[in-house]
Order: sequence, then structure tokens, then C-alpha cells
Amino acid sequence: MRTKVAELLGVEFPICAFSHCRDVVAAVSHAGGFGILGAVAHSPERLQTELDWIEQQTGGKPYGVDLLLPPKYVGAEQGGIDAKQVRALLPQEHRAFVEDMLGRYGIATPSDERLLPPTAGLNISPKGYEPLLDVAFAHDIRLIASALGPPPPDLVERAHDHDVLVAALAGTRQHALRHAAAGVDLIVAQGTEAGGHTGEVATMVLVPEVVDAVSPIPVLAAGGIARGRQIAAALALGAEGVWCGSVWLTTEEAETPPVVKEKFLAATSSDTVRSRSLTGKPARMLRTAWTDEWERPDSPGPLGMPLQSALVAEPQLRINQAASQPGAKARELATYFVGQVVGSLDKVRPVRSVVLDMVEEFIDAVGRLEHLVDR
Amino acid sequence: MRTKVAELLGVEFPICAFSHCRDVVAAVSHAGGFGILGAVAHSPERLQTELDWIEQQTGGKPYGVDLLLPPKYVGAEQGGIDAKQVRALLPQEHRAFVEDMLGRYGIATPSDERLLPPTAGLNISPKGYEPLLDVAFAHDIRLIASALGPPPPDLVERAHDHDVLVAALAGTRQHALRHAAAGVDLIVAQGTEAGGHTGEVATMVLVPEVVDAVSPIPVLAAGGIARGRQIAAALALGAEGVWCGSVWLTTEEAETPPVVKEKFLAATSSDTVRSRSLTGKPARMLRTAWTDEWERPDSPGPLGMPLQSALVAEPQLRINQAASQPGAKARELATYFVGQVVGSLDKVRPVRSVVLDMVEEFIDAVGRLEHLVDR
Repeated sequence: MRTKVAELLGVEFPICAFSHCRDVVAAVSHAGGFGILGAVAHSPERLQTELDWIEQQTGGKPYGVDLLLPPKYVGAEQGGIDAKQVRALLPQEHRAFVEDMLGRYGIATPSDERLLPPTAGLNISPKGYEPLLDVAFAHDIRLIASALGPPPPDLVERAHDHDVLVAALAGTRQHALRHAAAGVDLIVAQGTEAGGHTGEVATMVLVPEVVDAVSPIPVLAAGGIARGRQIAAALALGAEGVWCGSVWLTTEEAETPPVVKEKFLAATSSDTVRSRSLTGKPARMLRTAWTDEWERPDSPGPLGMPLQSALVAEPQLRINQAASQPGAKARELATYFVGQVVGSLDKVRPVRSVVLDMVEEFIDAVGRLEHLVDR
Repeated sequence: MRTKVAELLGVEFPICAFSHCRDVVAAVSHAGGFGILGAVAHSPERLQTELDWIEQQTGGKPYGVDLLLPPKYVGAEQGGIDAKQVRALLPQEHRAFVEDMLGRYGIATPSDERLLPPTAGLNISPKGYEPLLDVAFAHDIRLIASALGPPPPDLVERAHDHDVLVAALAGTRQHALRHAAAGVDLIVAQGTEAGGHTGEVATMVLVPEVVDAVSPIPVLAAGGIARGRQIAAALALGAEGVWCGSVWLTTEEAETPPVVKEKFLAATSSDTVRSRSLTGKPARMLRTAWTDEWERPDSPGPLGMPLQSALVAEPQLRINQAASQPGAKARELATYFVGQVVGSLDKVRPVRSVVLDMVEEFIDAVGRLEHLVDR
């Protein structure tokens, strides 16, 4: 699997693993892939600790960091707003809807002071993410990724000054062209089947059109990729590597809440939904009572980004806490971002074995194709 | 490309081409692929003429027929209902909504007798499709496909008595298991990106899970496939061949209405939508004023199958007729079933050149993969 991207990243396998969990990131890089820490909800202090730990664990093996850098968000024109300002913008109707919902699933409203979440959600304004960038660039990262929107010009320049590659996620050919114009080094073409923020075009259609549109910039395929046959398919479509997220959520190393991990292991590929209920933008996640409640006729509907994240961050913590009790009704609400490949995740495995199985199945799939052409 | 399916079908390339147009069917079989005539809206007399013509053109090359055989439809318990009965079930509100819409786009309401369409839509009850089966089995067809639901047991038996293969389309692993239990010879795993009736799971995810679920029954991949790289990807996922529909709609041979062909050539992969507005079941089509009108807050919403088809069959004819006038406002309404690959269809080409380009790009894609593994 020595593609252009494998050479750029300095890895054996061009398998990029997005995870919020440092153990997954380190284990993937250790196994010959490329771990990428999703750090948008991290404080600078926590990011510092995580990156120090990853570098210690992997002993110089390459890894990356992913931040959410959307060009449009509430308060963008004021250069971003802080957590307190965001909370002040949350409508009472929405707070009441969430508290009522949680109450109906047996989760009591906490005392007033506990209502404030530890963070206000996502660091998606320059004020929020600049300190994270300072920490990231002070480490030996090989890549920085922008999950929403083209990366700002100063970020691209700063990354290149540090000899760090810049990647950006694209859900349409148009996104990809904007990223290319912004000077990124890698474009992640992410199909609708992916977990998290995703568009409507499927990987099978999106990858070849993005590859053709941005050539010679190399493309990673994302969405629907959890095994070697899917990696072979992605490379057949013209990608130079893959970007996977969901498959790591059920690994031994993942810190996925136990109730969510159980649900993922039991889910079929039909059990996900694109919903704005976690971040305000359409993101694919497991369909549960939580996503259904937001679709009810009396739902006020999700807020925009970053308000919806600020609204639901603390309730989500309370749901996962309550859902840790066996038999709790709160378990029905538990959900998390995941792609349609959740249907193929049926046992907990160590990250290393996932990576090595991917490579083995990839080689078999290519062998099968060669055979079809030869005879 | 000598897969198991190529051997079963007796073709050089396991590229199945679904088309309502006999010229496309004949041209694909002639070029080494496998043409399949979509015949659900045909009268037995017309089917007789079409199949005679195809056999004359292709001189013994294998081809197939596709019918829509859903197990559930309005009137199923009475053994099906006829065209007159279906029309009697159309609510006045829906008829008025459609006439009002057409009026707003400059299409006048015709005189009463012309209100009745030439057919009431689709032959989806046993009463409707039995005569079609009689015609089909009196010809030298190699395959019969069921586009909705598992094929009825008597159909499978009859097909096998005639040495005809039976295929069925599956949008989920569950569908595929039901088809396997019904005794089909081939399963078409069709992803959400496909044109026409389609589910929510993408091809990248669906194909490997269906392949694993129904092995050793061979699987064709459908949805998102219009070029050789996508065929290579489908085969990498474990399919033994592909089933394509959209790509033929812009060929020289296709009888697609000119305004629709023009729209397809201009469309991007983001311009389709799953809508119930043509048949009553979710089907992917080009997003136009027609699909938008059905989503308006004052829309009565589509009827079920087969009522919606009966409601819109004649208005659709009137739309395409009016839209043939340059500059007509009716052009805004024109739509048709098409998959997300519509974004890659940018010129009118002969069928033969589409097939040969597919094969050439397939071979290149496999060569590229071999190279990645070798070095």
C-alpha cells in the first residue's frame, strides 16, 4: 500500500484513523497507520497532555491533529464568542425541551450551578482554536486537519512553515475545489455514509469526482470504510489512502461509553440517521430515542452551530452517566456519531488487529481483482 | 472480467444495463454486456414487439427483462385491482393539487376524456404482470429481475423450468436474505446513491454485507456505478458484476426526453433527491420544481403505490410534452429517476463507447492497485 499519501505521511499503510481517544491514535500509528486526534473539544492544557503522551507512546511515529474550523458560525463577525456568551443565546424553550426529555427518561434536573457544562462545547472560533494551534505546532505533528470548511490562510501558512501537512474534509466537489484553492496538501472526500458531519453524496460517487477535480492533490476516501475490501474499493476509485473513524469506536482502546459501544455492536447498517441534534449541523449518528425526540412534531428543532453543541453538551454527559446504570431508561437516549459501517462492527478488538486485518483483506481483494483481469 | 456472473449470464463483461429503451438493451448486449429491459409499464403487446426486436438485433446475445413485483400494494388482498379501480381511489385533493401545479407552470388542464392516461401506471399486481410473464417466457430471455420485494415462488419455479435466472434487488441485508430464501440466482445490492427505488444504505457499506450474508449466491453491485473505477471498486467489495441504470440515460440510443437529458448533462452529484412523488415509494430522481412542489407545506403529500403512479402518469406525459417547447416554464418541472452518478454524465455518447470505456478504465484501475501491492 505504498501510495503517494503513505510517502507523504511517512507510514506503511495510508490508513488514517480519526479518534478523540489518544490510545486509539497511538495504537494506529504504532501499527503502521496514521492516528489523528480529534481535539476540537479539548482545552489547550488537555491537548498538551494528550500530545505529550502520544509522542511518548509512539516514539516518533507520525500522527496528526484534527480541529473543527468552520468559516460560518454564530458570532463569527465579532471574531468569535466565548462560552458564557454562547450560553446566554440558548432559548429557554430549547433548554426546557431538553430538560423535559431527560426527565421523561428518568434523568433529574440538577441543581442550578451544575447546569453549566464544564466546557461550552466546541472551540470553533479563532479565539477558541488559536491556543489549540499553539499547542499543536509546539509538538511533532505531521498533519493538521480541518473538519468543516476550508482552512484559514494563516493556518495553511503556519502549518507549512512547520513542515506540517494540511488536510480538509470535503462532502462535495465544490468543497474540494475550495480546499484546493486554499492550498491544502490532502483532501478527504467524505461520503454521506460516514459518521459525523457529512453531506449527501455517497463515497462511491464522490471519490472519483473529487480525485478528478483536484488532481494532482492526493485524496483520502472517507465514509463506509472499515475493512480491507473497502480500502481496496477506495483505492480503485482513485484515492491514495483512507480516513476511518467509526471502526475504532468499538476497539478495546476506545473510550466510547459502554452503553454506546453495546449499541454499536448490536446495530445494523440501517440504524444510523443524519441529524442536527448534536451539533446543529447534519451529522450521522446512531438513531436512538434522542434523535427521534428531536424529530417529534412538538420539538423546537435543533439550534445552529455552536449553540446546539452548547445546549446539549452537559445533557449528553448526564445521559451517558445515567445510562451506565443497568436497566436505566436513560439508556434509550444514548447515542454518538457513527457511520453506516456500524453494521459490520460486531466484536471488540484491539486496534492493532483491526489494522492488520484491514491490510490482509486489502491484499486478498486486490489479488481477486488481478485474477479477474488475468484469466 | 470473467466473474462467476459473467459465466452465468454468458457475457464477456458482467455489466448489466437496466433500461426502458430497447435500443440501449440491444446495444449493451451487442457490446459484450448484458441488457435488461425494464418492462413494468409495458402492455403485453408492446413487450412482445420489443423482445422480438431485441432478439432480431442482438442475434442470440443474452439479455433479460425486469418487472416490478412488490408483495404489498393497494388491493393486493383482492388479487390486484385494475386501472379503473385505481383511478377511482385517487383523492380529489391530490388531483386538484397536481392540476393547480401544472397550471402554475403553464400547462393547461385537458378536456375530460383526455384526463385518463393511456395506462393506469404500473403492472404490479398478478393480474397486471402475469400476461407480461407469458410474453417474457415465450422469448429467449436469460434473466428475469424483480425490482421490489422477493419474487413470488411460482415465478422462481417457472423461470427455472425455462432455464432462466432470477435476480432481485436488495437495499438492505434483510432484503437480500429474503431473496436468498426465495431461491433467486443473483442478488443486486443497490445502494442509496442509485436512481429509482432505493434504500438508505450506501453501496460501499451494503455490498460487502450482502456478499457475506448470501454467499455463495453471487451479488451484483448497483448504485454509484457509471465508470470503470467504480466497477473495480464494486468487484473489490466482493461483487461479481455491476448493475447500472443512470449512465445509459444520456446515451445516443436512450429515449430520454430531450429536456431531461439536458438537465442530466448539466446536473451535479448533489442535484438528486429521494422522493415519493413519482411512484409513492422513495425513489432517487433529479431534484426539480416537481420534487420541490411535493415538499411544499401545502402539498397533500404523495399517495402510496400504485396510486401515486396512477395520479402522476398522465401529468408527467403532459409535462414532458409542454417542456419540449423552448423556453416553456413547464421545463422547470421535468424530472426523471437518476442516481448521484448523474454528476459525471457530461456528454451524449453511444452505448458501445460507454461500455468499452468502462472496461478500459476498469483494467487501468486494477493495474494501479496491483502496482500499489507489488512495490
